[in-house]
Amino acid sequence: MPIKALESMIDEIVSIKLKDQRVFRGRLTRCDVYMNLTLSDAEELEGEETRAKYGSVLIRGNNILWIQIPE
Amino acid sequence: MPIKALESMIDEIVSIKLKDQRVFRGRLTRCDVYMNLTLSDAEELEGEETRAKYGSVLIRGNNILWIQIPE
Amino acid sequence: MPIKALESMIDEIVSIKLKDQRVFRGRLTRCDVYMNLTLSDAEELEGEETRAKYGSVLIRGNNILWIQIPE
Amino acid sequence: MPIKALESMIDEIVSIKLKDQRVFRGRLTRCDVYMNLTLSDAEELEGEETRAKYGSVLIRGNNILWIQIPE
Amino acid sequence: MPIKALESMIDEIVSIKLKDQRVFRGRLTRCDVYMNLTLSDAEELEGEETRAKYGSVLIRGNNILWIQIPE
Amino acid sequence: MPIKALESMIDEIVSIKLKDQRVFRGRLTRCDVYMNLTLSDAEELEGEETRAKYGSVLIRGNNILWIQIPE
Amino acid sequence: MPIKALESMIDEIVSIKLKDQRVFRGRLTRCDVYMNLTLSDAEELEGEETRAKYGSVLIRGNNILWIQIPE
Repeated sequence: MPIKALESMIDEIVSIKLKDQRVFRGRLTRCDVYMNLTLSDAEELEGEETRAKYGSVLIRGNNILWIQIPE
Repeated sequence: MPIKALESMIDEIVSIKLKDQRVFRGRLTRCDVYMNLTLSDAEELEGEETRAKYGSVLIRGNNILWIQIPE
Repeated sequence: MPIKALESMIDEIVSIKLKDQRVFRGRLTRCDVYMNLTLSDAEELEGEETRAKYGSVLIRGNNILWIQIPE
Repeated sequence: MPIKALESMIDEIVSIKLKDQRVFRGRLTRCDVYMNLTLSDAEELEGEETRAKYGSVLIRGNNILWIQIPE
Repeated sequence: MPIKALESMIDEIVSIKLKDQRVFRGRLTRCDVYMNLTLSDAEELEGEETRAKYGSVLIRGNNILWIQIPE
Repeated sequence: MPIKALESMIDEIVSIKLKDQRVFRGRLTRCDVYMNLTLSDAEELEGEETRAKYGSVLIRGNNILWIQIPE
Repeated sequence: MPIKALESMIDEIVSIKLKDQRVFRGRLTRCDVYMNLTLSDAEELEGEETRAKYGSVLIRGNNILWIQIPE
């Protein structure tokens, strides 16, 4: 299942696109079946540039468009 | 689970981004699994400036984009 | 739980921000777990000015952004 | 509970604000827990003026922002 | 209950306002508790003029704002 | 029930209006109670002109406004 | 059922239209009943041109408008 793919990425760096078109990148530290998840060392990106740094963030799953999974 | 991360932040200062792009900052006093939560000493921010002070507020979880967790 | 905080405010004056950015203020007379609630002596505010008076209103909980709780 | 307040208004004149900002006024003839409801002698208002008359209408509850309850 | 009011209208002509503000008129042939419904001889209206004729249509209930019930 | 009307249209040509106002036309090959459905020989229309051909598509039911059923 | 059609496409190249009108194309590697799915070798398209390459992505099902299924 797709959620299993997310769980297997714990401790990896992921990029997350939100419905408001913002992109977060950080280390995945927790996730659940609704795609609620926490990132450490989170930064908000604009293209490849860092727009803001947030430390740890909890993102509400229903705002997520897609998650780029490292290969 | 990500919600556990939120529960562990009770009594800490958190910043909350809402879907309408507003940011609240305050002391987390209560939360539930829907991310409904209460803040004391809540203020609405515009960048780093205080736009309004609200005392205690109850935020409905489904409006939340993300919550910045202090480290 | 956050909803308990709301229940404890019955008979108090609360301010409610809706998703369409309007603000209602009135005396909280009833509420449920979906944040459906009734206000008496309800008024709609524009900044600190009264824009309209409604008497009693029933607000559907899913429209609520946040509720300011008196301290 | 707030829904009980609605049920107690059967046969009374209520005003209903929808999410698209339109206002309906009419006699409440039926309601359920989702705030689905029927009005008789329903009219759509623009300020205090009647914009259209509809006879009986069934309004889907999830479109409702708030309902003004006569006192 | 309001849905019963809809069921009692089977075989009658109803007008349906959708969230995208379009209006359909036709003979109600089926409905369910989500307000999913089918119309025969359906037409889309612009004011009182026919904009398009569709024969039979199945309308998904969650798009419906309100249904005008013949008296 | 309205969904039964859809099931009875398997193998027929249907037109589907989505919430983003696009129209698809094709042969209905599968459907479920959420109105998730598959079309074969699907084309996207602009008025009566074909804008794009897609072969087979799976449409997520919650995007559907209405489905025109052949008579 | 339509979801079965999706499951049968595992390992095939699919194109996915999101509600924000973006199109992803890639090899389907996992899916569930909510249409949450993972793609490998995913690229975002603008017309027929590649706009960005993402490697593996997990797409949240509720953002999906439709999925083009290879024939």
